Amino acid sequence: MQPRALPATLRFMLAARRSELSALEDLAQTCTLVTRISQLVHALQKERGYSNLYLSIDAPHQRQYLDSLSEATALLELELRNELEHLDQNSAGSADKARLFTRIAHALHYLDELPGLRRRVREHRISAQDATAALVRLIGSLLAVVFEAADSALDPQITHCLVALFNFMQGKELAGQERALGVTGFASGYFETELLERLEHLQECQERSFSTFSRFASPAAQSLWQALGASDSHRQACQLRDIARRTHAGAKVDGHLGELWFELHTQRIDLMQGIESHLEQELLQCCQQSMQRIRNDLHSHRRLLESLSGIQASTEQARLFSVHSSDLDSPRPDTPSSAMALSTLELLQHQALRLQGMHDELREARQALDERKQVERAKQQLIRQLGCSESEAYAQLRQAAMNQGLRLEEVAQRFLAANAALTRRPHLKH
Amino acid sequence: MQPRALPATLRFMLAARRSELSALEDLAQTCTLVTRISQLVHALQKERGYSNLYLSIDAPHQRQYLDSLSEATALLELELRNELEHLDQNSAGSADKARLFTRIAHALHYLDELPGLRRRVREHRISAQDATAALVRLIGSLLAVVFEAADSALDPQITHCLVALFNFMQGKELAGQERALGVTGFASGYFETELLERLEHLQECQERSFSTFSRFASPAAQSLWQALGASDSHRQACQLRDIARRTHAGAKVDGHLGELWFELHTQRIDLMQGIESHLEQELLQCCQQSMQRIRNDLHSHRRLLESLSGIQASTEQARLFSVHSSDLDSPRPDTPSSAMALSTLELLQHQALRLQGMHDELREARQALDERKQVERAKQQLIRQLGCSESEAYAQLRQAAMNQGLRLEEVAQRFLAANAALTRRPHLKH
Repeated sequence: MQPRALPATLRFMLAARRSELSALEDLAQTCTLVTRISQLVHALQKERGYSNLYLSIDAPHQRQYLDSLSEATALLELELRNELEHLDQNSAGSADKARLFTRIAHALHYLDELPGLRRRVREHRISAQDATAALVRLIGSLLAVVFEAADSALDPQITHCLVALFNFMQGKELAGQERALGVTGFASGYFETELLERLEHLQECQERSFSTFSRFASPAAQSLWQALGASDSHRQACQLRDIARRTHAGAKVDGHLGELWFELHTQRIDLMQGIESHLEQELLQCCQQSMQRIRNDLHSHRRLLESLSGIQASTEQARLFSVHSSDLDSPRPDTPSSAMALSTLELLQHQALRLQGMHDELREARQALDERKQVERAKQQLIRQLGCSESEAYAQLRQAAMNQGLRLEEVAQRFLAANAALTRRPHLKH
Repeated sequence: MQPRALPATLRFMLAARRSELSALEDLAQTCTLVTRISQLVHALQKERGYSNLYLSIDAPHQRQYLDSLSEATALLELELRNELEHLDQNSAGSADKARLFTRIAHALHYLDELPGLRRRVREHRISAQDATAALVRLIGSLLAVVFEAADSALDPQITHCLVALFNFMQGKELAGQERALGVTGFASGYFETELLERLEHLQECQERSFSTFSRFASPAAQSLWQALGASDSHRQACQLRDIARRTHAGAKVDGHLGELWFELHTQRIDLMQGIESHLEQELLQCCQQSMQRIRNDLHSHRRLLESLSGIQASTEQARLFSVHSSDLDSPRPDTPSSAMALSTLELLQHQALRLQGMHDELREARQALDERKQVERAKQQLIRQLGCSESEAYAQLRQAAMNQGLRLEEVAQRFLAANAALTRRPHLKH
């Protein structure tokens, strides 16, 4: 073994650890951003709900409250923008980051339109439906940032937290849309077939989101979610869903049920926000723990380098190595040139196995995100191809899944693959 | 639209492009490293072949040639180490990079042992088999760097190039191992059953590697490969394979056939090197093209920012946007607040779609790498569990695949999944 070369090996071992740490610090910053987005989205959902109420059931007395909500939202928006200023500065490049930044630009673009939208709401120059649509789009663009953060996170535990949070946020957003739709329906005294279909679509997608959330949630978050399911607000909100389903042109109900619907669903959504805050805390804690772990590792790696820089290998140094490789399960090399070389090798193999393990663990969480993306895309393609509504597209996919005995995700995947085969460009060759 | 907010949107669009570019520059550096590794591996294969010859058939007249080969290898090693010095400096962190660095450290560790190994070869203090095994290990660690480079590349075209190159290098390495094994067999006059099994294993794995290479290779590289298959050296090398298969203790052949075997397989491998060089060139060209494309994009994005920094939107600026969004196929938003805002949105959606498309295109190439990894891992687990040889483990997998009518990769995947289920830790929860 050449003394010249030994440091290069160790330098790269250290560089690997530093690289991991700096990626994690980056990810921690993204996670802080995600928690700010989560809070802003909640405020926007509230503002959307009251804007809708304000426009739908002509409730001028709500104006003051709506204004205070807008102010609260604007404050959270400002905090998010400040956070983004930080993010803008340090840009270690990656294609993942390029996707994240593009999503952020997209969300900022819609945020820029918010003041104009608020004016039009106050001046009744926009319908409840259009105002809701604009805010759905804005919130969707913010959720896309969270999705991208989850999709590009490379630490399995943090990815699990992000996938749980994203799916919860998505479910809560659909609950918010359901609330808005219900207000519209009750305001006109009954639910038209198309409105009912959309309502059902929103409820099903909510369930899918929350069930994915449950798969990735911590036991603590899961019990919070079960408690919500057993709450009075949830139970009563479900009862109003049944009433909505039974209405038709010949069986109208009192328009004021809309306010009750709004109140109960608001209570339900507020309970969700409690869980969301819990998920945010878990996410930040998880980041802290991972960083602490890697910092400790880096520290002991540094000690290693220092103790090895004096070329001679003492028994203590060999022991120092072997502490780290205690849970190593890979076969030993046949011909170690020295005890120390063996230890370096063990350490390296341990590191390689650990990184590989992390890479593998990510797969499951990534798959959950992938499947969501594919269902979403299949829906969009159907909408374009058939010129149908979102809920019709969804109904088509669901029907195909039932007919073929497949999961919705599998049907979406097959549909996209078949479509891609039809429109495929000549295979990518250089 | 607020003038305050507009720049933030555009800043993030620019940051996304810069991020892509810097990731690509990083990747280009890794690709240069890969080409150096490819050259070093070729030199090491040659040195292994002649070391083996030198030790197997007691050919002291080969000593001088072997020394010149070692010197050539040492030069290439030095170049690689210099290249690595550059790489060490700029470390934008990511978990992918951490894996790459760990693999590099691993390869450096084995490279450090090379001078000692050379001495032992010269002094006949090591068997041909052990010397070969040590060099197989070293070359394997270098190939693992190329694998990791391919696995973490985020540009689909470059990834295709890397996957083609990696699989070609892997196939060529197996051809080199086959050459060494053949020399051993012919030296003793015949091939024992176990040796024949290993030979067959090496030939099958070669075929798998080259067939994956073909899937990802450019048409030019594919025709070079077909030309090699039609060459005299290849045909004659295959004939000697048949002769080897027919030998046994009762049907020995002239030991000097080993030299002919060595020469023909060397010719075959040298032809492979020609293709390898071609693949290296394609890889570097592909990097250049991608970088040029992104630089141009970045440049036009910058022009955009400059022309927009004066707040007023002129028609020219709107036209400047729309040039880029010409091939945009996503639905337009319902309520554009201005023509310019629409263009920004189109540009953003175009960018998001493009990045998403790249992400999707990567999937196929990644899957090819994943499958290789899984076959490799299934083999290693079988070796550990049954205490059998590599070729026996491979034979088991192949037999299982035939019995169940599945692809080898699928059998490997099921085997690993079943094993993982047996040894699973409590599910990762926080």
